[in-house]
Amino acid sequence: MPRTLKGLSLIGLASAQPGERTFHAADARTGERLEPAFHPTRPADLDRAAAAAEHAFGAYAATPPAERADFLRAIAAELEARGEAIIERADRETALGDARLTGELGRTANQLRLFATLLDEGDWLDIRIDAGDPGRTPAPKPDVRSLRRPLGPVAVFGASNFPLAFSVAGGDTASALAAGCPVIVKAHPAHPGTSELVGRAVRAAAREQGMPDGVFSLLFDDGYEVGQALVRHPLVRAVGFTGSRSGGQALMRLAGERPDPIPVYAEMSSVNPVFVLPLATRRRPGPISDALLASFTLGAGQFCTNPGIVLLEAGEAGDVLRDRLVEGARKAEAHAMLTAGIHRAFGTGLQRLADAGARRLAEGHRAAGLTAASAAVWETDASAAVDDPRLTQEVFGPSTVLVRYRSDDELLAFAGVMEGQLTATLHGEDDEWERYRPLVAALERKAGRLLVNQVPTGVEVCRAMVHGGPYPATSDGRTTSVGARAIERFTRLVAYQNFPKALLPNELA
Amino acid sequence: MPRTLKGLSLIGLASAQPGERTFHAADARTGERLEPAFHPTRPADLDRAAAAAEHAFGAYAATPPAERADFLRAIAAELEARGEAIIERADRETALGDARLTGELGRTANQLRLFATLLDEGDWLDIRIDAGDPGRTPAPKPDVRSLRRPLGPVAVFGASNFPLAFSVAGGDTASALAAGCPVIVKAHPAHPGTSELVGRAVRAAAREQGMPDGVFSLLFDDGYEVGQALVRHPLVRAVGFTGSRSGGQALMRLAGERPDPIPVYAEMSSVNPVFVLPLATRRRPGPISDALLASFTLGAGQFCTNPGIVLLEAGEAGDVLRDRLVEGARKAEAHAMLTAGIHRAFGTGLQRLADAGARRLAEGHRAAGLTAASAAVWETDASAAVDDPRLTQEVFGPSTVLVRYRSDDELLAFAGVMEGQLTATLHGEDDEWERYRPLVAALERKAGRLLVNQVPTGVEVCRAMVHGGPYPATSDGRTTSVGARAIERFTRLVAYQNFPKALLPNELA
Repeated sequence: MPRTLKGLSLIGLASAQPGERTFHAADARTGERLEPAFHPTRPADLDRAAAAAEHAFGAYAATPPAERADFLRAIAAELEARGEAIIERADRETALGDARLTGELGRTANQLRLFATLLDEGDWLDIRIDAGDPGRTPAPKPDVRSLRRPLGPVAVFGASNFPLAFSVAGGDTASALAAGCPVIVKAHPAHPGTSELVGRAVRAAAREQGMPDGVFSLLFDDGYEVGQALVRHPLVRAVGFTGSRSGGQALMRLAGERPDPIPVYAEMSSVNPVFVLPLATRRRPGPISDALLASFTLGAGQFCTNPGIVLLEAGEAGDVLRDRLVEGARKAEAHAMLTAGIHRAFGTGLQRLADAGARRLAEGHRAAGLTAASAAVWETDASAAVDDPRLTQEVFGPSTVLVRYRSDDELLAFAGVMEGQLTATLHGEDDEWERYRPLVAALERKAGRLLVNQVPTGVEVCRAMVHGGPYPATSDGRTTSVGARAIERFTRLVAYQNFPKALLPNELA
Repeated sequence: MPRTLKGLSLIGLASAQPGERTFHAADARTGERLEPAFHPTRPADLDRAAAAAEHAFGAYAATPPAERADFLRAIAAELEARGEAIIERADRETALGDARLTGELGRTANQLRLFATLLDEGDWLDIRIDAGDPGRTPAPKPDVRSLRRPLGPVAVFGASNFPLAFSVAGGDTASALAAGCPVIVKAHPAHPGTSELVGRAVRAAAREQGMPDGVFSLLFDDGYEVGQALVRHPLVRAVGFTGSRSGGQALMRLAGERPDPIPVYAEMSSVNPVFVLPLATRRRPGPISDALLASFTLGAGQFCTNPGIVLLEAGEAGDVLRDRLVEGARKAEAHAMLTAGIHRAFGTGLQRLADAGARRLAEGHRAAGLTAASAAVWETDASAAVDDPRLTQEVFGPSTVLVRYRSDDELLAFAGVMEGQLTATLHGEDDEWERYRPLVAALERKAGRLLVNQVPTGVEVCRAMVHGGPYPATSDGRTTSVGARAIERFTRLVAYQNFPKALLPNELA
């Protein structure tokens, strides 16, 4: 197991040559420069990675599903075997802490194993067979069989906030590899060392399992050039991305401007509104405020499912819940954020709320450290939030805005104007659901996942999960990037008519 | 049953007001102006149609599937009851002839009934249930259930070449209505009378079945304004289109430029290459040339699956097949095309082939009549076809180009450069398949449907059918516009976490 980082892109089973320019990772807590130097992938090496992926595709797409399942399980095992080194580096690069990173590594391995299980089962292929009937009149009925086939080489962009579960061997990579697509990862520049360690684990598994050279490559860059070239590359057939709205929109534009547009699955931004209904406000102010506090400060608020907006009744009952939340937030410890840039953006987001007239109710403990962020609770009125989009834009970090509503109409008006979201949450009591059916119906059109009396952070990796949502939460609100159905994103339907058995794909014969 | 055409858009259950400007349909055979005058939909009426669709959506999406199935079956019955009038008008507007139109009406009714059956069965919902486990450590497992939900109001553009099966009550409309989406159809200006008759049948079925007002509207326009406004309309959530490449690309652009991009399912263009392999060329020249002749001249060649390119071995064996095809084409009757514009475009396409150096081998009977088109057979070399894209562009009409290949390498090179297609067909013998596995693998990446020893025209409406294909055959090569899976295009995944039973969608409770 190589523990020494080289800072070089992995082009299939080989390493790239060093270039002239380099960049370094930084310790997320101290800003200290971390060795080694990383070499942005040169255009020729990107071309080699794409050509190798294209070359590998034929053989890889034709591997028996059981072999791809073994490959995925081998990646999971390699990650676990190298877990200590991966977590140590990831903690320095992200400040997320051992406990969170240990959990995330486990989740990453579990995701890989979930897709391996899907491959064993085969339902994801959506096999359909219409037997022919040569005697049908007026025209014979042809034999038509169809299933999902892999798209081809897939580009995956690592996410800053999930250095493992949504990065080099994360959900997009696992689902694309499971579908039969070679993967070219563009590592996130904030955690290149973690990315290289994970990339080496994937490469080792590919070697062990005899996978075709080119089934996996890993590219580095601290700028935009490599990522843009990857999305424009004629051999790339789809893109997976988790990151900012502006980043996702840029990739959508690039992919749409290609001579042959390709699908982009970008998970971009969400404020995950929480609707606290009147009876729940009165009966459970403590548990609800405690759950919200834990949820919006978790991991320094750096989750795409962070509850950044809480709809709360105006008046005394709401005040009780609010005051408890504020009291808790004031006591919350400050935490280092992922990068200095994210910390700066957090400050800008808070200033935007202040400029828009939101009232700041709480600020948690301050702490030394370049990137330390304190919990922030804000308050505004529903009418203001409906009118001024600055009050409901995502602030990536431990901040939440209490939007005080005076009537059911205000709640519905808010649900009507809110943007597409990954999640929407309701806290309510059994004897008030009937009254809020119209609200539930409105939210169903705005979010990919609706929750009742739980918190949106902590996305369960399971077969029924939907981690998606209408634009601008994602670029393609029909799909999910977490859970079993994520594999479908990297496939297309192909039908075989009147094929001799010998020529049919094995699954259809 | 109203048989008198009014020329007014149908806005939900009401008719639009007449406008100032009007247009007329033309008899496709004679150019004679057909009454009545049709009134392009005014912007205010388009807004009314969209608002009515949005208003209907909540109630319509919540209808029990059995009620939507009844609605679809009622549309089919209304179409059949009004069949004589519909076919009479459609024949004047399209020159497709009674036999073809009778078959197409039957197919249209069958499509509606196929989706009704899907609604009865429910598999299309893709229901997944992960039961919760409150006792799981370290964290309780939440109850997560998910299924497909309808997207919202859908815009459907009628196709010129299928006045019934891909128009007002065609596949896009049937699948969107089945999914639970209200539909706003923009009628094709070449057959507005047929469109109005079919639209009235849909409206009558909606009335009979007590469907919410706004579940269906029908708009007219002989220009682009109404269609463009429809795709830009904020309440429209998806677009279905069958037509030209330039038309589909324009809609893709409009949808992508919206503040909230929406999915466009455009079926655009395809030359449906047919690969005649060497042994088949030698053993079955007669049956293969006869089948090709019938296929490329069917309906004056006005099918999206028309075989416009035939890869044929150079040399004597290929010449035998070619000569028989040419002989047949010379005897083929001329047929009126759908419109004068399509006839002009056919002439332009033939001229483009001549300009690119293709050799014209045959021209069928000429006939009087504004839009009469004769069968045309062309010949070129595979190397020329690989180099000059003019030789492989779609020529919409009864024309096919024999591309003569000298080696397997030339065949593979052609498959490598060819654009995405709806179909690709192989004619081969059992003892040559092994040799052509690489060709089959290459074609699998370029087409939505692969056929062996049959012809691509005549798309079977069945569960396994895939009528789609990589760009530019369609805007979204992951999907199909024919067959059971077409319903999935108008849905998105939604998950419900920890929902009380009373609040879950019926299908999940």
